[in-house]
Amino acid sequence: MAKDFTTREQDYSKWYNELVVKADLAENSDVRGCMVIKPYGYAIWEKMQAELDRMFKDTGHQNAYFPLFIPKSYMSKEAAHVEGFAKECAVVTHYRLKNSEDGKGVVVDPDAKLEEELIIRPTSETIIWNTYRKWIQSYRDLPILINQWANVVRWEMRTRLFLRTAEFLWQEGHTAHATKEEAVQEAETMLDVYADFAERFMAVPVIKGVKTEAERFAGAQETYCIEALMQDGKALQAGTSHFLGQNFAKAFDVKFASKEGKLEHVWATSWGVSTRLMGALVMSHSDDQGLVLPPKLAPNQVVIVPIYKSEEQLEAISVKAEEIATALKKHGVSAKFDNRDTHKPGWKFAEYEFKGVPVRIGIGPRDLENGTVEVARRDELSKELVEFDNIETHVTKLLDDIQENLFNRALKRQKSQTRSADSWDEFEKMINEGGFVKAHWDGTNETENKIKDLTKATIRCIPLDEKEEDGSCILTGQKSSRRVLFAKAY
Amino acid sequence: MAKDFTTREQDYSKWYNELVVKADLAENSDVRGCMVIKPYGYAIWEKMQAELDRMFKDTGHQNAYFPLFIPKSYMSKEAAHVEGFAKECAVVTHYRLKNSEDGKGVVVDPDAKLEEELIIRPTSETIIWNTYRKWIQSYRDLPILINQWANVVRWEMRTRLFLRTAEFLWQEGHTAHATKEEAVQEAETMLDVYADFAERFMAVPVIKGVKTEAERFAGAQETYCIEALMQDGKALQAGTSHFLGQNFAKAFDVKFASKEGKLEHVWATSWGVSTRLMGALVMSHSDDQGLVLPPKLAPNQVVIVPIYKSEEQLEAISVKAEEIATALKKHGVSAKFDNRDTHKPGWKFAEYEFKGVPVRIGIGPRDLENGTVEVARRDELSKELVEFDNIETHVTKLLDDIQENLFNRALKRQKSQTRSADSWDEFEKMINEGGFVKAHWDGTNETENKIKDLTKATIRCIPLDEKEEDGSCILTGQKSSRRVLFAKAY
Repeated sequence: MAKDFTTREQDYSKWYNELVVKADLAENSDVRGCMVIKPYGYAIWEKMQAELDRMFKDTGHQNAYFPLFIPKSYMSKEAAHVEGFAKECAVVTHYRLKNSEDGKGVVVDPDAKLEEELIIRPTSETIIWNTYRKWIQSYRDLPILINQWANVVRWEMRTRLFLRTAEFLWQEGHTAHATKEEAVQEAETMLDVYADFAERFMAVPVIKGVKTEAERFAGAQETYCIEALMQDGKALQAGTSHFLGQNFAKAFDVKFASKEGKLEHVWATSWGVSTRLMGALVMSHSDDQGLVLPPKLAPNQVVIVPIYKSEEQLEAISVKAEEIATALKKHGVSAKFDNRDTHKPGWKFAEYEFKGVPVRIGIGPRDLENGTVEVARRDELSKELVEFDNIETHVTKLLDDIQENLFNRALKRQKSQTRSADSWDEFEKMINEGGFVKAHWDGTNETENKIKDLTKATIRCIPLDEKEEDGSCILTGQKSSRRVLFAKAY
Repeated sequence: MAKDFTTREQDYSKWYNELVVKADLAENSDVRGCMVIKPYGYAIWEKMQAELDRMFKDTGHQNAYFPLFIPKSYMSKEAAHVEGFAKECAVVTHYRLKNSEDGKGVVVDPDAKLEEELIIRPTSETIIWNTYRKWIQSYRDLPILINQWANVVRWEMRTRLFLRTAEFLWQEGHTAHATKEEAVQEAETMLDVYADFAERFMAVPVIKGVKTEAERFAGAQETYCIEALMQDGKALQAGTSHFLGQNFAKAFDVKFASKEGKLEHVWATSWGVSTRLMGALVMSHSDDQGLVLPPKLAPNQVVIVPIYKSEEQLEAISVKAEEIATALKKHGVSAKFDNRDTHKPGWKFAEYEFKGVPVRIGIGPRDLENGTVEVARRDELSKELVEFDNIETHVTKLLDDIQENLFNRALKRQKSQTRSADSWDEFEKMINEGGFVKAHWDGTNETENKIKDLTKATIRCIPLDEKEEDGSCILTGQKSSRRVLFAKAY
């Protein structure tokens, strides 16, 4: 499986692309920029979805579904929004094909031209706020706390599996509130939900912060984000939560009668994470032997492989293996007994290692005699002999250990790759070495752009927990009261 | 709630449209033919999805995701398929908008014209079989058992909420097999899954059958279907499963090396159900008082409403209500205690009745004294006093009873609306009165079309369990060996 597999050292970017394809997570389709998410990759995404969905519902949200199409005119109603999104979208202009005159295929029927073109949603603020106008009259109709699981399309020129594709899957929350405070609170709550999910389920430590004006979502007054650091020292924006102010309410004329009977514009948030998280997951933990998955998101947490020569041996092993699988399932562990006779144990070992199954249990004839099994953990690539008795307790604890170990390992890496720069030379050097660089910035768009031009680094965020500190901008020397987080990013 | 609500008797079609909107299931969006599925409607769809997904996985299927876009040329590769689908689809021709010259909006950028137009998938056989070509080399790669949950678009001219919309949500299974027998078996298995789901979860009795050639899916060699009968006597196709033969394998050149080393074309099936099921659910059980939901698909199975005048009364009732809610949840029943003080009990009663909550529990001060609660069942609109003790056992059983009652009621109706016609006059009369009509047919497209022109009735299916019987075609008098099922349909 891991044959002809590029190492991270050789070429990190190539390693990632190969891993995603060889581990059966996804592949490029023949449609430019669109991927096929294969069953193994989709099973991981389903686990992410299930957990996020539970968290959204626990915080009072409900799911709904809005149209794929957005009338072109809606896009121009919010000034900043159209600048950010209208330039890279799929446009439906016709609604029918007809047989071509040469009879060899089909052509667009010119008689079936739409009066107004439809845009495939790149995000749904416009169509949703156009709908909310009809749903909201009074403060009694608020808040509206809705989430949508959907596909969206952004016509990216350079695409990479999971990280940047023309079509991707995501969830988008769209909430409406009576007060500014409540909307800000909602945006912050969802940021916390995302951070909690990233750290506890994906085992990916993240920095919570707000974006600079230049990096804000098109139409937002504040964009909160979680930023993660990949093994190559590049940052990845893993989720965003936007306080939209009254921008969309004003653009779509959504007002409510307050308790005091006054007509006011509604306050809004939106927040989303996408299949991009799959990229973050893969790049955070995997190694030169293949995928490494945190137990909480692994489609199979445990795989049991029999090692045998004769049919009788397999039969005896199977009894024990089924017993272990059943015991594990009772403890809520997903365990698969791979008794296929089409593949040798060595092949299976390599396969599951490459696919990142957290725990592998091997059972051979000698194990049966000794009352033991061989338990291998994927994260550390280590093995140990464990006694049958209470194997389920052992494995349950081991899965917890692996989950924790992956997070701690990633956290340690993130910390070691986060440094502070106090001069331009230091800053340039650190940025080129990779990782997060904390530095002072004078707060202007101009400086931010200049730094980007000079180093390719962007301000990932102004961290929420960064303390006030007097300093001077690394580029201009102007006064600054707080460090911001720079990095080159995906 | 039920004020100004059209009755079924008055206008069945209007009753349906009003019910869907007033019960907060869905509404038309401003985008032609596309609906907004509201949270309450979506919660029912999520319950359907969860159950179907479990059934698909139990029968060995995995989920995956394929592109939304299909290159235009793919559509013409399978001759019958293009005839069926290319005529009513959304066509993407451009990938960018730009500011209009008058500065007032955005226009399609003529420089961003696609070389080949992209079709929004009306169904995914073509894009999936183009992908399977790369996945299948040998018999060892088979079977492939994949399902996809997705949105699809068919440019329908006349649309109705859930029943026929331009965009709808569905699942589409696409499987690949080494033998014809295995593929036919798969198509039949999935038909059984659909029938089982319709009857056990939706409480909708269905007739299993195969479509005539004229009504077959475009590209299929055999289309299996389940047909349900609505209260107005019109049939509704609730799910289809297609044996596709080697049509798509041939169109997309998908071959495998058999065990014997021969190169052969792969055998295929596809099968799907959609948000159309929501329409079938609503129309099967609901009445002039609103929605009636089978307990297994109701977002809230039980609602508890306190009846009180003073705060002290509410407090005392709340203790009991929470106790009951907790006991019910322990038994796996979803129970909601509605203690909102913004609405009166009478309003809540009407609201939950209209929204089809299967069981309503009312608790007042006198109930507390007597150790009883009032339990109302939505299906029969009846009430009874039940003692506190073992209320959870009572309610659990009641929910089972309601589920069963809804099915039996629908089955009784379906049976009473299924008749046999042996002459043309009888046939015409029965068709006009509504319901399924079993009649002999000579097996030709021509006769089928003529009957459709004369009566608007179509052959819904050739029922799988219909026994052989000598007879003569109701229209032509030609010989026939089996009755087929006619009806007017949605």
